[in-house]
Amino acid sequence: MIIVMAPGHTPEERARVEETIRSHGYRVVPIVGELRTVIAAVGDGDKDVLYQCESFPGVESAMRVLTPYKFVAKVPGRLRTVINVANTVIGEGTLRVIAGPCSVETEEGYLRIAKAVKEAGADLLRGGAFKPRTSPYSFQGLGEEGLRILARVGKELGLGVVTEVMSRDTVELVASYADILQIGARNMHNFALLKEVGRCEKPVFLKRGIAATIEEFLMAAEYIVSAGNPNVILCERGIRTFETATRFTLDINAVAVLKKRSHLPVFVDPSHATGHWELVAPAAKAAVAAGADGLMIEVHDDPASAVSDGIQSLLPHRFAALMHELRGKESAG
Amino acid sequence: MIIVMAPGHTPEERARVEETIRSHGYRVVPIVGELRTVIAAVGDGDKDVLYQCESFPGVESAMRVLTPYKFVAKVPGRLRTVINVANTVIGEGTLRVIAGPCSVETEEGYLRIAKAVKEAGADLLRGGAFKPRTSPYSFQGLGEEGLRILARVGKELGLGVVTEVMSRDTVELVASYADILQIGARNMHNFALLKEVGRCEKPVFLKRGIAATIEEFLMAAEYIVSAGNPNVILCERGIRTFETATRFTLDINAVAVLKKRSHLPVFVDPSHATGHWELVAPAAKAAVAAGADGLMIEVHDDPASAVSDGIQSLLPHRFAALMHELRGKESAG
Amino acid sequence: MIIVMAPGHTPEERARVEETIRSHGYRVVPIVGELRTVIAAVGDGDKDVLYQCESFPGVESAMRVLTPYKFVAKVPGRLRTVINVANTVIGEGTLRVIAGPCSVETEEGYLRIAKAVKEAGADLLRGGAFKPRTSPYSFQGLGEEGLRILARVGKELGLGVVTEVMSRDTVELVASYADILQIGARNMHNFALLKEVGRCEKPVFLKRGIAATIEEFLMAAEYIVSAGNPNVILCERGIRTFETATRFTLDINAVAVLKKRSHLPVFVDPSHATGHWELVAPAAKAAVAAGADGLMIEVHDDPASAVSDGIQSLLPHRFAALMHELRGKESAG
Amino acid sequence: MIIVMAPGHTPEERARVEETIRSHGYRVVPIVGELRTVIAAVGDGDKDVLYQCESFPGVESAMRVLTPYKFVAKVPGRLRTVINVANTVIGEGTLRVIAGPCSVETEEGYLRIAKAVKEAGADLLRGGAFKPRTSPYSFQGLGEEGLRILARVGKELGLGVVTEVMSRDTVELVASYADILQIGARNMHNFALLKEVGRCEKPVFLKRGIAATIEEFLMAAEYIVSAGNPNVILCERGIRTFETATRFTLDINAVAVLKKRSHLPVFVDPSHATGHWELVAPAAKAAVAAGADGLMIEVHDDPASAVSDGIQSLLPHRFAALMHELRGKESAG
Repeated sequence: MIIVMAPGHTPEERARVEETIRSHGYRVVPIVGELRTVIAAVGDGDKDVLYQCESFPGVESAMRVLTPYKFVAKVPGRLRTVINVANTVIGEGTLRVIAGPCSVETEEGYLRIAKAVKEAGADLLRGGAFKPRTSPYSFQGLGEEGLRILARVGKELGLGVVTEVMSRDTVELVASYADILQIGARNMHNFALLKEVGRCEKPVFLKRGIAATIEEFLMAAEYIVSAGNPNVILCERGIRTFETATRFTLDINAVAVLKKRSHLPVFVDPSHATGHWELVAPAAKAAVAAGADGLMIEVHDDPASAVSDGIQSLLPHRFAALMHELRGKESAG
Repeated sequence: MIIVMAPGHTPEERARVEETIRSHGYRVVPIVGELRTVIAAVGDGDKDVLYQCESFPGVESAMRVLTPYKFVAKVPGRLRTVINVANTVIGEGTLRVIAGPCSVETEEGYLRIAKAVKEAGADLLRGGAFKPRTSPYSFQGLGEEGLRILARVGKELGLGVVTEVMSRDTVELVASYADILQIGARNMHNFALLKEVGRCEKPVFLKRGIAATIEEFLMAAEYIVSAGNPNVILCERGIRTFETATRFTLDINAVAVLKKRSHLPVFVDPSHATGHWELVAPAAKAAVAAGADGLMIEVHDDPASAVSDGIQSLLPHRFAALMHELRGKESAG
Repeated sequence: MIIVMAPGHTPEERARVEETIRSHGYRVVPIVGELRTVIAAVGDGDKDVLYQCESFPGVESAMRVLTPYKFVAKVPGRLRTVINVANTVIGEGTLRVIAGPCSVETEEGYLRIAKAVKEAGADLLRGGAFKPRTSPYSFQGLGEEGLRILARVGKELGLGVVTEVMSRDTVELVASYADILQIGARNMHNFALLKEVGRCEKPVFLKRGIAATIEEFLMAAEYIVSAGNPNVILCERGIRTFETATRFTLDINAVAVLKKRSHLPVFVDPSHATGHWELVAPAAKAAVAAGADGLMIEVHDDPASAVSDGIQSLLPHRFAALMHELRGKESAG
Repeated sequence: MIIVMAPGHTPEERARVEETIRSHGYRVVPIVGELRTVIAAVGDGDKDVLYQCESFPGVESAMRVLTPYKFVAKVPGRLRTVINVANTVIGEGTLRVIAGPCSVETEEGYLRIAKAVKEAGADLLRGGAFKPRTSPYSFQGLGEEGLRILARVGKELGLGVVTEVMSRDTVELVASYADILQIGARNMHNFALLKEVGRCEKPVFLKRGIAATIEEFLMAAEYIVSAGNPNVILCERGIRTFETATRFTLDINAVAVLKKRSHLPVFVDPSHATGHWELVAPAAKAAVAAGADGLMIEVHDDPASAVSDGIQSLLPHRFAALMHELRGKESAG
């Protein structure tokens, strides 16, 4: 932690800062410049407590030197995380694609779409049983019946299933059916839920909150890993900006930044990040070009009748064409 | 719902849109202009399902005419919501102030601060027992012991207490101690939690999510009210923008917009909305001038030692001075 | 400047950083901690050049200690800037109000509105002769004829006039008619224009760019002051955020931050910051409560026929009522 | 234009809206629904003037049906714009790359870098002679001497040159040296400048403002095209968001949206959109995958000594490696 003293501060004000630093067990290193005096707090441990100094009289600002996450940070010599789940290896260099409808609506419908995405080359199935919806008047998901359908279809087709868990008290239930637990963007800061999936043995697919910085996103992952679950997949799914032509703004820069700062695998969800099926293919190709380890894509064979997110769902034949293009580039690249 | 057809659309494309509208029970009103053809869907009920038309070939865009919330909307002739809680009336024209430390740390310390804010004129006490923290390494709150302290101190001083509930399965527990249940900004989109507090009899203090639009904020309130709990207090607490000089950007415009669109009381939290104690007083005065029904303010008598949010906490004497100024204006105004 | 070395950096990488610092004439102060090594560059002068170190191998980040502005910074012992213009004193504690229509349309109409705002207590007149418009098909202003009308009406009523200048080559022309030169939000980063008004003798009313940070806003003012013109008035007029319920988001926090960091007077434009006349009064009152030195408000007596910004213009009687309320508070406060 | 009447509006309020619509020469089509009455204004021409109705009593909102740009809009049957400049064809399917240093510093240095980027396969040269800088204390460019160097080096190597013009009164000067005139992000809303380059015969490279919506970006292009210059190249260069890990957020979605809405060629500037050289290659590859017609990339052979933007400049060998990768994919694709 670096504390910058304000011009004109008094010796007492400086002494108080230095005393506070020492009282927390850190060493004080003052640097007296022509225009500013800076006090560095040196020592091992979390110095965030020293942020409080910023409110002291005579202090201009406080700046953090260390990143606040530890377990999820990429460090020299440490290998990247590779996750083995449902006969699929995530994070070792091959593009992985999770596909399926936004919500599980009926078993027949879900099986039909699942078969289509499997044939097109998807590695894992997605489908929501518990749905977070902005409106209380929208379809809220089939609940446990949806989980049963997911599990049966996954087993029949030999594909692992990914589904969202929305509250701490349903983690066990969802984990008993799903291969990967998804934490949605709206719950990225639901710390009670993060800690609970951190105690779970299933891998976690963690979506970035729409207003979360990359650092906060990594801190959410740190919650899970520090609670005991090392298998976290990060997913960029668009952030909220002033632009209204698309539903969200895909932060494509985040892919490379996350891979630089963390050893966890990084996915992109081009369906939510664009909000419109015509934009899904360009966004998916961009994500792969930027270095993503995988994609999560919404597919529906009757988008106009889908109970949720039909606008952003690809028809199966369009998904197949996209997969063909992506896999072709992979083998060529 | 208004569907705008793209230039050059085919008769078949238009027919499909009209058929979809009719199949959902709405009337079709086509408006053929020189440059665009527009199809209006007319009828009572939620037409959001028609948004799907936006993905149809030949369609340029779909625009909603109705607001998506019903219970929380201000309608001509309906009175504003007034909430009676713990001998305090919220929303009838008198400024109400909720004050106290960010977290309950010890009973002795909490009582001392609570006495100070009561003396300064606070109407209700705040204090966190379950704390949402960005870092898993930060203090997470005293839990039920914190609730017990809150309740004892509130009873001793004769003030109602407001505290945050973070997960669906602790609503009953928190409601057994608190007078008002707070939903934090990070949980504004935790729909499982919103529904649960909607089934509770205690008033709910709902903070706006840092990336939530005013419409989404009102939809979150709609979740609670439509589940059976009419006593919701809306709280603007700063949104996330590109500006980094302050922790958040206080959306002061939101106060008047919320009061125009909804009959619910509107509070402002100048502590979180600024993130620095020196900015709390100007922000608080601005909120009152803009028409807020109340304020939630963090107060601590030793900010440098506070386990959370010390930087943005007012010292008791500064809080008292602010209260003096606010109450003075009120009586003058 | 503080340079943070990455974990695992080599001695050569550190040597290169230190050498670079020294080669620019600064002193090197290394601080070796348990987890990070930090190199401080100490000395008088602009160290921004050292930012380049951030791209060096072995460097994790570079952090600035000094603020980049000098002339506009508030420093201990220096008085706040007070501007005397057209018999009005700006910045000495009395609320100043600039009012008038968005554009000058006709002399008769302008005179009528100007009389009304004068009667209501406005201190200065506003009115655009050169209009920045998002669409090339919108009214672009009367040009020099508009300036002539402005000057004549201002003289007749004995009020100073404020009008926008949009390009470097018209500064002299506009300055020959106006008492205060306005730089619009869209030109806050038009550095050629900033330098030109910096060489002018008339005070400058500088609006914050819609995506400008407070620091960038102060740097724009620094351009003007460092070019020789000390009389700059800062105007917060709303920033662009994700919220779409209002045209812009009034950054009310900015008022107190600007007054804390700079000695320049701070105004607020509640018309542009809200975009709707019903929201102007609450925003204006909030601005004054937050400490603004003045307001700029759009007034029109036939908003429905105004060629620009009618939606956000107050009718004269509503402006008069607002002025009455504002001046009343001032005398009471 | 669609005008939505508020619930409880009076017949007089509705009559006033209808009268206003008719008085501007449009036809009135009322649609009376169960919950809302909607008034459509039908007819050819710019109906933006009807937006004023939004401020009328009894009106809830006004919604635009037509896009406000005409010349730059993609319409069925119209070919995409292809620009022939300096022996290079832009927009016909082959990836075009503009490369060079941020600023022209010396002739020798510029020639050396220009040779390197030509050898690596760049199609056009970039280099700033007039530099927009946030700080008045930063290097402001060599001015006309820089233009002369640019032109000489371009001629020697047989490559066209792109350089920024910052004010209306230097358009002619810059156009006498450059092959393509660049409008920087900070000037995207400098309408005086847009109109001036619209009267010029040289193609214009228009960068998106950091807070400009896609619609505003297209309106800025409309300014140029409607003034007579059809040869505009759009360039996405990152927008400002809350994320601070990168200098800007590359809006990769914008590439596909712009190509869907407009016939103009679309470039991406991964140097400014990321702000760090390590992120340039992933961003460049993503842009090409998303369908960009070209890239603008900063290259410097001694970034640590560059007078501007060294952090985001690629070393020539890294640029060559990126070009190799990009051209390889193109030939394979």
